[in-house]
Amino acid sequence: MNPKLEIFSQGEEVITGQTVDTNAAWLSQQVVPMGFTVTRHTAVGDRLDDLIALLREISTRADCCLCTGGLGPTTDDLTAEAVAKAFDLPLEFDGIAFGQVKRFFEHRNRPMPESNRKQAMFPKGAKRIDNEWGTAPGFSLQAGRCWFAFMPGVPSEMRHLFLETIQPKLVSRFTLQPGKLITIKTVGIGESDIQQRINSIEIPTQVQLGFRAGPDDVQTKLLFPHDYPEAAMAALVSELAGQIGDTVFAIDRVGDATGDLVFVIDQLMNAGGHTLAIAETASQGLLAAKCIGSQWLLETRYEQSLESLGQKLGVTVNANDLMATAQAMAVKIQKTSAADFVLVQLYAGDNKTFHDKDKSIFLYNTLLTGDGFHQTIHSVAGPIKRKQNQAALLALDLLRRYLQHKEL
Amino acid sequence: MNPKLEIFSQGEEVITGQTVDTNAAWLSQQVVPMGFTVTRHTAVGDRLDDLIALLREISTRADCCLCTGGLGPTTDDLTAEAVAKAFDLPLEFDGIAFGQVKRFFEHRNRPMPESNRKQAMFPKGAKRIDNEWGTAPGFSLQAGRCWFAFMPGVPSEMRHLFLETIQPKLVSRFTLQPGKLITIKTVGIGESDIQQRINSIEIPTQVQLGFRAGPDDVQTKLLFPHDYPEAAMAALVSELAGQIGDTVFAIDRVGDATGDLVFVIDQLMNAGGHTLAIAETASQGLLAAKCIGSQWLLETRYEQSLESLGQKLGVTVNANDLMATAQAMAVKIQKTSAADFVLVQLYAGDNKTFHDKDKSIFLYNTLLTGDGFHQTIHSVAGPIKRKQNQAALLALDLLRRYLQHKEL
Repeated sequence: MNPKLEIFSQGEEVITGQTVDTNAAWLSQQVVPMGFTVTRHTAVGDRLDDLIALLREISTRADCCLCTGGLGPTTDDLTAEAVAKAFDLPLEFDGIAFGQVKRFFEHRNRPMPESNRKQAMFPKGAKRIDNEWGTAPGFSLQAGRCWFAFMPGVPSEMRHLFLETIQPKLVSRFTLQPGKLITIKTVGIGESDIQQRINSIEIPTQVQLGFRAGPDDVQTKLLFPHDYPEAAMAALVSELAGQIGDTVFAIDRVGDATGDLVFVIDQLMNAGGHTLAIAETASQGLLAAKCIGSQWLLETRYEQSLESLGQKLGVTVNANDLMATAQAMAVKIQKTSAADFVLVQLYAGDNKTFHDKDKSIFLYNTLLTGDGFHQTIHSVAGPIKRKQNQAALLALDLLRRYLQHKEL
Repeated sequence: MNPKLEIFSQGEEVITGQTVDTNAAWLSQQVVPMGFTVTRHTAVGDRLDDLIALLREISTRADCCLCTGGLGPTTDDLTAEAVAKAFDLPLEFDGIAFGQVKRFFEHRNRPMPESNRKQAMFPKGAKRIDNEWGTAPGFSLQAGRCWFAFMPGVPSEMRHLFLETIQPKLVSRFTLQPGKLITIKTVGIGESDIQQRINSIEIPTQVQLGFRAGPDDVQTKLLFPHDYPEAAMAALVSELAGQIGDTVFAIDRVGDATGDLVFVIDQLMNAGGHTLAIAETASQGLLAAKCIGSQWLLETRYEQSLESLGQKLGVTVNANDLMATAQAMAVKIQKTSAADFVLVQLYAGDNKTFHDKDKSIFLYNTLLTGDGFHQTIHSVAGPIKRKQNQAALLALDLLRRYLQHKEL
């Protein structure tokens, strides 16, 4: 049996919807592969009674609870007080914590209000968790059945604190049988298409299959039990990836940092010593923007009017053959650019079609490299921002597939 | 006393962190200005016992509960069963709901599995909520102290259903004293700077002040009680906006759709019949990308090398005077472009500085219009993607301030 874990977020800004609670999802993503079963996420505001009631509930039904928020020096800090009242533990002064809170104010050249002294007060028996990335320290303690860890609510601080301090503690405190998580990353294919493609493959019941569709990729996630044979795991992953086809741009294991599509392209462009010039239309700058900071991207241009782009490049636009037009433009760009690759993205469809979420546009992508032209055509529908994003991703994916396979 | 409302999300994908639960935050944003006090968000997975326990808890402590998830026809639909068991209500067949579920499968040309029949089973006394935007219908029912509404978990379906069906029901069922929400939107200023600027203004205790810092703006939110005098409200808002200064690009009331910075610019550019050409560096395409679909944006260009950009434009780059360089570039671009406005964004700092999150770059924005040059200089730090985004926003904001004030 996996230990039961709950996640609890404190803050008026969460409960009133001013902040989307991304901490809970992020923490779940960390602890599920570690071997915990997450049973609940709860968020409450800054009301002491609610906090006390919730802490007591959790202490009877969970083995572990990760808590975020309610520790910051500039907001009402109710967490320590609520814990003290919930479990009948007196608050005790912690000199080291007090120094940390004081330094926070010193660094900002502000006098420390007397009220902040209470941030150095922890319930008896609690262990301080130092927070070198931000404001006040956190703390942990065992209450009833449950081991609680209290962390700050600022996502960047919380993530650092979790990875550096809490995660090692969890590993040593609990008997865990971590699963093995594999992520197959794709672009240019929807979740339901993936499901259809892998429908014929039988997935053992002890393997958890899940999907995560983000704006920039669709991830097929497989969580294997800790004792699943390595060879069988590799075979299943390779069978699934084969069925999904060449839309797969990366397969990650836990701990891998393969990253997103641009990360994959970045590695390949740098390894090959290539450089790129872009002309884009439907993506309107977003194609270049996604490659921010890449040394290999030398230039991009966008013109709203295809005729005006053609004029400046000295190319006659043939609306009935955008592939030929894109090829001619790529050749012209190569002549004035220092880049050895040229990527031209054109689209067919008038401005009304582009804005209409119920209508599709056709994308014509042309990549010119040392060994000639490589081209793809796609149809994209949806709101204009989706069309823009897909246009950028599908053009990048043409580059990725050329670099990974050198054949299209 | 405002009625107490809880929000409850069901689904393994939420509890395991595969999905960030944006539904809870969205629903809170809707119901808080309506006059509810949100006391808890809870998420549980697809375990029947957990669901039953949670439903019982909520029925004793909340006046209203909005539930999402657990209704889809292709996943385990435990909600109706859990409600039936929690409150001892037999499940009853609903012919109209059955027709809706059947049509879902017919539209997809798939046979309806026998198991889906249970989706037309509702606890005795429940009222069906038709869902014309998706799959299975929802339902509502009173249990103990609490009125429950069960909606699908797909955000777009849930939002439609809430706005069209649930919200009117809430208004008629509960005695609400809706507050008045005012949002002051700014760009180019941080939350803590805003706080400092408005520090001297006394905000009455019955007015709730909050901040929401997104990537593209910082929103200062004021929630006034329903009976707050209109004149006093207007005076306070105008005093606050005055203190925050010309970084304010919009002030919204509930129901306004002023939108984001680009929306504001869009209105002004179209009203004035203006068009724009851009040359961008640090934003690397993102400046143009943010204006997706705008008729007034005619072209953008990006070159990694400032020298190469200068060469192509016939401008000698003076690294010690990027303002003069940007002016010269704007003049050249105006000559070859059909646009009457030209926006040039350059930055000082080498590539290493750009990548280093602890180092700042300086942005030089130049806007050339019929009445001359308008310029701003900014220093931006942080990770490269933040620098990129700020570069795009600050250049757009120069355009916005020119259009709103015609003086800088």
